Amino acid sequence: MSKRRQDKSTSEPNFSQSMHNNTSALIEKYLDVRNRSTELCQHMTVEDFVIQPAVFASPVKWHLAHTTWFFEEFILKDHSPAYKVFSSDFTYLFNSYYNNVGKRTDRDKRGMISRPGIDQVLEYRHHVNLAIESLLKQEKPSTEVISVLELGINHEQQHQELLLTDLKYLLWQNPTMPVYREDMNLLTDRNNENGWLTLNAGLRNIGYRGKTFHFDNERGRHKVFIQDCKLSRSLVTNGEYLEFLNDGGYNDFRFWLDEGWTWVLDNKIKSPLYWKKIDGKWFQFTLSGLKKLDLKAILGHVSYYEANAFAAWKNMRLPTEFEWEAASKELSWGTRWEWTGSAYLPYPGYKIKKGALGEYNGKFMINQMVLRGASVATPKGHSRKTYRNFFHPHYQWQYSGIRLAK
Amino acid sequence: MSKRRQDKSTSEPNFSQSMHNNTSALIEKYLDVRNRSTELCQHMTVEDFVIQPAVFASPVKWHLAHTTWFFEEFILKDHSPAYKVFSSDFTYLFNSYYNNVGKRTDRDKRGMISRPGIDQVLEYRHHVNLAIESLLKQEKPSTEVISVLELGINHEQQHQELLLTDLKYLLWQNPTMPVYREDMNLLTDRNNENGWLTLNAGLRNIGYRGKTFHFDNERGRHKVFIQDCKLSRSLVTNGEYLEFLNDGGYNDFRFWLDEGWTWVLDNKIKSPLYWKKIDGKWFQFTLSGLKKLDLKAILGHVSYYEANAFAAWKNMRLPTEFEWEAASKELSWGTRWEWTGSAYLPYPGYKIKKGALGEYNGKFMINQMVLRGASVATPKGHSRKTYRNFFHPHYQWQYSGIRLAK
Amino acid sequence: MSKRRQDKSTSEPNFSQSMHNNTSALIEKYLDVRNRSTELCQHMTVEDFVIQPAVFASPVKWHLAHTTWFFEEFILKDHSPAYKVFSSDFTYLFNSYYNNVGKRTDRDKRGMISRPGIDQVLEYRHHVNLAIESLLKQEKPSTEVISVLELGINHEQQHQELLLTDLKYLLWQNPTMPVYREDMNLLTDRNNENGWLTLNAGLRNIGYRGKTFHFDNERGRHKVFIQDCKLSRSLVTNGEYLEFLNDGGYNDFRFWLDEGWTWVLDNKIKSPLYWKKIDGKWFQFTLSGLKKLDLKAILGHVSYYEANAFAAWKNMRLPTEFEWEAASKELSWGTRWEWTGSAYLPYPGYKIKKGALGEYNGKFMINQMVLRGASVATPKGHSRKTYRNFFHPHYQWQYSGIRLAK
Amino acid sequence: MSKRRQDKSTSEPNFSQSMHNNTSALIEKYLDVRNRSTELCQHMTVEDFVIQPAVFASPVKWHLAHTTWFFEEFILKDHSPAYKVFSSDFTYLFNSYYNNVGKRTDRDKRGMISRPGIDQVLEYRHHVNLAIESLLKQEKPSTEVISVLELGINHEQQHQELLLTDLKYLLWQNPTMPVYREDMNLLTDRNNENGWLTLNAGLRNIGYRGKTFHFDNERGRHKVFIQDCKLSRSLVTNGEYLEFLNDGGYNDFRFWLDEGWTWVLDNKIKSPLYWKKIDGKWFQFTLSGLKKLDLKAILGHVSYYEANAFAAWKNMRLPTEFEWEAASKELSWGTRWEWTGSAYLPYPGYKIKKGALGEYNGKFMINQMVLRGASVATPKGHSRKTYRNFFHPHYQWQYSGIRLAK
Repeated sequence: MSKRRQDKSTSEPNFSQSMHNNTSALIEKYLDVRNRSTELCQHMTVEDFVIQPAVFASPVKWHLAHTTWFFEEFILKDHSPAYKVFSSDFTYLFNSYYNNVGKRTDRDKRGMISRPGIDQVLEYRHHVNLAIESLLKQEKPSTEVISVLELGINHEQQHQELLLTDLKYLLWQNPTMPVYREDMNLLTDRNNENGWLTLNAGLRNIGYRGKTFHFDNERGRHKVFIQDCKLSRSLVTNGEYLEFLNDGGYNDFRFWLDEGWTWVLDNKIKSPLYWKKIDGKWFQFTLSGLKKLDLKAILGHVSYYEANAFAAWKNMRLPTEFEWEAASKELSWGTRWEWTGSAYLPYPGYKIKKGALGEYNGKFMINQMVLRGASVATPKGHSRKTYRNFFHPHYQWQYSGIRLAK
Repeated sequence: MSKRRQDKSTSEPNFSQSMHNNTSALIEKYLDVRNRSTELCQHMTVEDFVIQPAVFASPVKWHLAHTTWFFEEFILKDHSPAYKVFSSDFTYLFNSYYNNVGKRTDRDKRGMISRPGIDQVLEYRHHVNLAIESLLKQEKPSTEVISVLELGINHEQQHQELLLTDLKYLLWQNPTMPVYREDMNLLTDRNNENGWLTLNAGLRNIGYRGKTFHFDNERGRHKVFIQDCKLSRSLVTNGEYLEFLNDGGYNDFRFWLDEGWTWVLDNKIKSPLYWKKIDGKWFQFTLSGLKKLDLKAILGHVSYYEANAFAAWKNMRLPTEFEWEAASKELSWGTRWEWTGSAYLPYPGYKIKKGALGEYNGKFMINQMVLRGASVATPKGHSRKTYRNFFHPHYQWQYSGIRLAK
Repeated sequence: MSKRRQDKSTSEPNFSQSMHNNTSALIEKYLDVRNRSTELCQHMTVEDFVIQPAVFASPVKWHLAHTTWFFEEFILKDHSPAYKVFSSDFTYLFNSYYNNVGKRTDRDKRGMISRPGIDQVLEYRHHVNLAIESLLKQEKPSTEVISVLELGINHEQQHQELLLTDLKYLLWQNPTMPVYREDMNLLTDRNNENGWLTLNAGLRNIGYRGKTFHFDNERGRHKVFIQDCKLSRSLVTNGEYLEFLNDGGYNDFRFWLDEGWTWVLDNKIKSPLYWKKIDGKWFQFTLSGLKKLDLKAILGHVSYYEANAFAAWKNMRLPTEFEWEAASKELSWGTRWEWTGSAYLPYPGYKIKKGALGEYNGKFMINQMVLRGASVATPKGHSRKTYRNFFHPHYQWQYSGIRLAK
Repeated sequence: MSKRRQDKSTSEPNFSQSMHNNTSALIEKYLDVRNRSTELCQHMTVEDFVIQPAVFASPVKWHLAHTTWFFEEFILKDHSPAYKVFSSDFTYLFNSYYNNVGKRTDRDKRGMISRPGIDQVLEYRHHVNLAIESLLKQEKPSTEVISVLELGINHEQQHQELLLTDLKYLLWQNPTMPVYREDMNLLTDRNNENGWLTLNAGLRNIGYRGKTFHFDNERGRHKVFIQDCKLSRSLVTNGEYLEFLNDGGYNDFRFWLDEGWTWVLDNKIKSPLYWKKIDGKWFQFTLSGLKKLDLKAILGHVSYYEANAFAAWKNMRLPTEFEWEAASKELSWGTRWEWTGSAYLPYPGYKIKKGALGEYNGKFMINQMVLRGASVATPKGHSRKTYRNFFHPHYQWQYSGIRLAK
């Protein structure tokens, strides 16, 4: 997977605008993304699709079905009168968290569903793809259809990333540490810049402005006053983090937030996720199996607690999401989601949309921290300088890394 | 599945004796049982094999692999010098609870193993079958080999029963209530006798005596004094149990043991497992899907707490395991495991065997109640009047029923 | 506290009979027992009375109030028409587990009640004592009153024992290890006999026979066939148990029941309760504070799991409750409750009484093991050869010990 | 308790400055605050002091001892060479969360300590008071002593508030709903202003500036850009909140953050804490016992989840902490802590102090929301426009209320 050091989306044609005028391009975009989901699964065994390795990580089969359900539920049911629902059971089985849509499989029970099997889920995908194609070809799609379709495409791209991180977490549960694909070690990137970028104090405009696709949580362009600061041009490497670890970082409460320290003690955390010490040497589990830890490669799979503790050990801090956004056009980014020191909260004027799609982002604005950038697992084109990712501070299973500020 | 109303094992040829003299019969017996395991799975999808629906219920794939591991670990490794271990990983993955054999997958993580897949597990079975056949053909097997082989065969039969009950529990997790096999509703048996069998007070000999296979926990023939009592010739039916339910049985603490009542409240138990009321009518989930509750059929899937509460409501009690054994030759049994009022404890003189096989039974002799008889899911021939099954008092997922005593 | 090596109750006058004819003796017995409860508390601080140190251990104040509630609820309310309830709140606050009597404070919330304070509880005791005295003096008490009064007296004696064990458990939570009374180290008793008592196989009569007070769970004299066996005349000492510990007893799964081993691992059990190793030397916490472990004194505060593991290490076993009862008149006992290998189950013909008092014993007959004998904390006279105490197998906080059998 | 509608602290003499020059004023201030702690307890029973009603709420005795420990540990041990530690045990027992100071009683075990009793804790307070007085009189105190003394005084004031809220929570556990003081219903305040205060967009200076006492988390005066907005001049009343409740607010997921909704369902939340519906009428538990709900009084005891849901139902939002601070001089406040929409995070340039006192604030900057203002339970003088209080979003036990913004 090639490195994406810059936000690619800005150089793409204006999606919403051009798509509206060009149905065949729209279909092509739709199918491209849809096909990539199944391509990602080409090396999976049937068994790999089924298991839910943790409450926070879903079975791959579920990702494939749920992203399809999204198009069926929010486009076909509303806008395609002739559409025949593939299976009424699927509405229940593959809803994620949309209370507006009704009851659903509990999040911790997604791995209890052996039937439908992966074959039926692939049929379901095919059935919905045909119906979407047919809907788009039939007549000039409405602005609303285009808009939800774009959301569905971006939603599927988000699940492509989760599909890879969840599969990795599943294989990690297996004491035999299986190789998914020999050519898919996503942890080899290195920094190509060094030193510090200086930001001068002043008012900056933050938030999305433009006409291409974006999520509601990045909307609401607004002014934020930023203080003088410096952001590192490079991300923390495995080697730098290992110094922290070897300096007793996981044994010294002084570097940790109180809840972070409790997390370390309760879970006996001794290193980033996927690190494993064997006979005195450090290894790292990847989608290509267990590999020797590459000290020059960029660190991944750390929690916010670890990122914050590392920064404290360095006597520095994490950037805010506003500093990050203000600096982003001068930074190299795109291989790790970067933890910021900002809590995930609404921008000024943010309103939750009515109806089910209003549940997409807003209801999660508590107890989570913002990550900026994108990761090696993020699909091409699915990134922006204004993109706001968010996770609870203890999660390590994403390709999350650290950029320092001071 | 035809009813087995009487203990069939007694009319079978003396296994150990005859087998010893007849290698080809031994191989045939071994292969018969081994093949039945895979036959039971003929209608499963690949996905059905993988999932662990609860800590107490294992994935089907795990049952198939673990029973194979038993022969590899306890026969081939020790007695077949030329044997090549199929995969050293499997020793770790498919050990169940034998501390003597070393570390193993945690019991609650058996469903986390997507690889090896079912295909490799079937290869593993084939590999071990060939090696066992070869070992047996090569030379006259030793008494110890015969003895462990018999244990392995009986062990596999036990897992055949669990395989069915665990699969059922898995399918029950699925809100679509899938049909496993249209011809496999195991809950249709009815009583063919009625009335009460009288046992007169006196000394009885309890425990296994003979030369055929039996488990160590039924050994140690000893005298037990039994009081005057009567045992019901019939098992409680769904209809009889429904009277208890409709009389408020689940809402009245007076019928319940204190821990049973807590179990009812904490788990919001309202009926036997697999019962479901839809629009005022009772249904029951079976391996043939959801069926109308057959009031005349024999009740199944009750816990000891429920069995005990039902008996209290009737102003009766459950038989002890000794009463049951003393009466068994005059009773019709074999469709439901029958909860007794006896705790699972060692017989006089019971000694735990040295080494791993000593862990088979003895270490579980606490906090469990004895069940006698056999169930519709028990393999043919795998039952005896002296057989002692045992479960914790809250388990409902076996084909467990109630026989009253007074 | 002097040792009670023999069952004292048998030499006492026949309580029910004599009491019935002698109201003043009845009043005296009642007041004796009532006063002993408060005498036991003479060295407590107000704060000692309030705290609930664990779900299984109640505050001392609660013991004092609950035993009083028992007399109010089951005697005064029913049999003393002029009686004025001390406080209607107390009915709710100090009911223990009698569902028949209505709602009550949850068991794990008994330590949340700061008001009424200990002063009011003592007033409550006085109020009820006066009313009981008055009831008894007024007219010749009915057989039922006598019978419930005796139950209440024995109930209070049981709580006197719990009061001491619960207080000890509370003080143990305190890192300063306070001394309750310098003269109250209850762990000094030593064996005064050695060797083995032989029991010959044969039928024995088990269960209470007579006319003095006894609990319903020991009623139902019945025949039990006992095998040839030997019971140790001495109880296991601290020194003997230390050998097991030093031999790695807590690190070797082979001696433990499966659930016992899980208990050891989950709770990091390394010794009997109240043992503490300081600078390489073993100490034991007592009601007189931390004392050097007396190797010749009789072991206390072990769970059934530990008792069973110790016996397995010795290649012996625990006696059954029937063996114990059959041997009891030839044994020295009374300093430790002795774990038996028998599960707590009903005797033949046992019926749970109707009404609240039927909840006294019968509903606990699951998942508990029988202990026989009595302990240094048991009130004088509150013991019998047929007495059946019972606890879950993991409890250590009673003065429970080990007698071996083989 | 009189209402404090305006920040009183600004009109007080400059504490640090004046104190430095005036030892007797310093002693007086110290003793005033210290004495107020014990005055608050004048109506408590000994039993009220001991119990810990929840992990988040400490025993009153613990508050009295811990605030004393603070002065002993951070002033007397370091600055008073002749000082004799009252009891070395207390260092362990009454440390709260200072890892730098060493091991300590687990937070959930603070209610397990019956000894020392309240008498000894009062002696401890006296002992430390004398030593502090003596230290201050002896010589002109150093700037560091003054600074830590001020921190200790403010720390004690914080615990005075907690002492009242924790006592209230304890009495609430008691089904008899005791009255603490008839004259201490703290929930009677009403709004004395209405309408909306308009804030115009622009840069504001946020954070403490001055020379009087303040906490490190409010330091670092910095510019924040604020958007046009309006803040309500009144706080939400019980009556207004009841409309939300009666409109099904607790049954409609659409108003709630996702974790808030889970909190509602898991804890069966149906109203603010301390509300109780009896025979169709709403009551509220206060320190004066159960009172009829005063619809015109200001709402208290809501969580952030409830505050946020109420605002969503109103189609409004909560103010940010910056808006609040910018508006504070024009607002009436001081009866309820007011939830803001800001996460508790460090101000620009915030550095955690070295040593134990660095643990005071900084390590809690995760997963908590800021509250601004002060409450009826806050000691006089212990409030400032820049004061940042913080709690996890599910806590209801403080006197926390709602101010709306739009």
